[in-house]
Amino acid sequence: MTYKFSEKVSHLQASAIREILKFTSDPEVISFAAGNPSPEAFPVDELNRISEEIFKENPIGALQYSLTEGYTPLRDLLKKELEKKGEFDPERDDLIITSGAQQANELACKVLCDPGDVLCCEAPSFIGSLNAFKSYNVELKGITLHEDGVDLKELEEAFATGKVKVFYIISNFQNPTGLTTSLEKRKAIYELAKKYSVMILEDNPYGDLRIKGEAIPSIKSMDNDGLVMYSRTFSKILAPGIRVGYISAPKEIIGKIVVCKQVADVHTNIWAQMLAYNFMKDNDIEAHLASLRVIYKHKLELMIEQIEKNFSSQIKFTRPEGGLFIWCTLPEGSDMTGFCKKAVAEYKVAVVPGNAFMVSESDKTASFRLNFSTPTDKQIIDGCEKLGKLSKEMFGD
Amino acid sequence: MTYKFSEKVSHLQASAIREILKFTSDPEVISFAAGNPSPEAFPVDELNRISEEIFKENPIGALQYSLTEGYTPLRDLLKKELEKKGEFDPERDDLIITSGAQQANELACKVLCDPGDVLCCEAPSFIGSLNAFKSYNVELKGITLHEDGVDLKELEEAFATGKVKVFYIISNFQNPTGLTTSLEKRKAIYELAKKYSVMILEDNPYGDLRIKGEAIPSIKSMDNDGLVMYSRTFSKILAPGIRVGYISAPKEIIGKIVVCKQVADVHTNIWAQMLAYNFMKDNDIEAHLASLRVIYKHKLELMIEQIEKNFSSQIKFTRPEGGLFIWCTLPEGSDMTGFCKKAVAEYKVAVVPGNAFMVSESDKTASFRLNFSTPTDKQIIDGCEKLGKLSKEMFGD
Repeated sequence: MTYKFSEKVSHLQASAIREILKFTSDPEVISFAAGNPSPEAFPVDELNRISEEIFKENPIGALQYSLTEGYTPLRDLLKKELEKKGEFDPERDDLIITSGAQQANELACKVLCDPGDVLCCEAPSFIGSLNAFKSYNVELKGITLHEDGVDLKELEEAFATGKVKVFYIISNFQNPTGLTTSLEKRKAIYELAKKYSVMILEDNPYGDLRIKGEAIPSIKSMDNDGLVMYSRTFSKILAPGIRVGYISAPKEIIGKIVVCKQVADVHTNIWAQMLAYNFMKDNDIEAHLASLRVIYKHKLELMIEQIEKNFSSQIKFTRPEGGLFIWCTLPEGSDMTGFCKKAVAEYKVAVVPGNAFMVSESDKTASFRLNFSTPTDKQIIDGCEKLGKLSKEMFGD
Repeated sequence: MTYKFSEKVSHLQASAIREILKFTSDPEVISFAAGNPSPEAFPVDELNRISEEIFKENPIGALQYSLTEGYTPLRDLLKKELEKKGEFDPERDDLIITSGAQQANELACKVLCDPGDVLCCEAPSFIGSLNAFKSYNVELKGITLHEDGVDLKELEEAFATGKVKVFYIISNFQNPTGLTTSLEKRKAIYELAKKYSVMILEDNPYGDLRIKGEAIPSIKSMDNDGLVMYSRTFSKILAPGIRVGYISAPKEIIGKIVVCKQVADVHTNIWAQMLAYNFMKDNDIEAHLASLRVIYKHKLELMIEQIEKNFSSQIKFTRPEGGLFIWCTLPEGSDMTGFCKKAVAEYKVAVVPGNAFMVSESDKTASFRLNFSTPTDKQIIDGCEKLGKLSKEMFGD
């Protein structure tokens, strides 16, 4: 039997990262390829305590069918927290709990985009979101990403075509580059979106993991016109395995997302929602985040130090103020794919080739992504030394 | 700001059941409208024990990102169990864990159906699946459901158009009717699917809840040609709030579902998968299912007895051999919607009007659905007495 798959799905490929991750099952391989939070960052004992409490106090509530919109106490608490930062307008907005921000972004696209609609994004951008958009046969248009955010001229040219429905942006410590969009550019992006009636999907998974510099207001906090959908997640600040995220947006949009969420998975695991709620309620979240920042500041600074110490001076790299990733760029015209393959096959260090994050994997890039949150200190030191050797072998001191 | 939603979503409405469920927040209302398993059926203490064990033995594994395909020990165990019943061919098939069978059915449709493709289903059928299919702009064609399964003539006529991509069937104790497709019809359906190259999506959430009669082999167990996708769930035999289901199908199809699952929610809550696995591993599942059957047998027989005792003889009803639902039909031409409205507003008993389960809610039906798993014995007795009064008032003895 040969199967004919739907048009939207037949061109979808499994993430190229997976090909690299295959190598990482080799215990000899040091992986800088993942995007996992550091296991040290999970508040295991507290989550265990809370889970026991849930089973003691409300086991049926944690096991029975629940509301599609999410666990009401969690939704109310999140709305209140967002409102404090000017990121939620109770008159205009609503909020739904999703199975990770992945689902939030996927459903935002599903409710708004028809096949052939154009969705703009930073180039490069997060592959998981790009594939979600592609799975609805949306046409992706990547906008060149500079140090301080996307190229505004390119963005306006795209918007001016009148075909762009949504602009997708990871405003803080972007995946894969670690770059943060400046306040000025956020304002300019918002104004352009308003001018051309384009919806903004602002994805902010890493915003709480800022380890230096000043926090920049979200685009959502500038929204007076109901243009911004704002997705967040517990994955990087609590635990990704529980799959709890959320999206806030104007009520009408959340209403449609609720209908789509209902047909997607009825509701998000309710125990996990209770876990997130009780954690927020019972703990000093600012103190918890501060403890995470200590872990990530150390790892990020260690990796930057080791890159400076070991890498060929021909390799450029970003210096993120938070998040989980550093973006390295080989000299123009280099064989980036060859570098990544050699790194994992010969030097036993896995990195993600940058084309995995381009709108089309055939788009050229000389960059690759490093993750510093998952490896141990020793792995960071050893891995950077090895990558350094390879880089000098290929590009000289 | 007025929002323009995607074509596939703009016509989607929240389930009509929700309108009825609104009334059920009134504590005076007895609800026969839900589809929830009985809370008594949840093995709370054992799940609590297992959860504590998971946090003790593998907390990081339960909290970190995991594989899209699902928790490997759970997948392996399920494959083995299915294989024993001839429902899994290790050479040909694969299996993925999903966030409930809802997601399994949604993704099966997503990977196979383009907008305008025809998907056939029983009429009536499960509203959650119908809405999932509609959310991909698939054209639904309902096939009349008789006591022993769909009308084969109608089914062949539909298949013969060459436009049908998938036939969706709940083979055991169907939602909403409680009816079971006979062995003969299963064979005939399979042969028709083979003749016209139509894929079968067999949904079997209630199969383990048979309280009398002989189990009938699944259509999946007859599949020699790679035509059947088979979705199952832990919702009715363990707990729906954990959102763990699975689908087995030929490898090529599961491969595409994996890609779509990855962009939908990365993976299903991993703690919940471990919970399901450990429950299967540590317990005598047959004994557990037997204990559930005792609960449901009692409730089903009680409701049938109360219907016989109280309802007008003009109302026909199914006598399911398992599952969670009974389907009642008013005399032809009756005002079914009026009956349901009066039932909840005046008699304080909520039932689901049958048009909620039709391919189009404007399709005529004189039927409504009763659920017997959620109400208490007293509620079953009182609710049937009240519905009985209303039925006699409207249709005489």
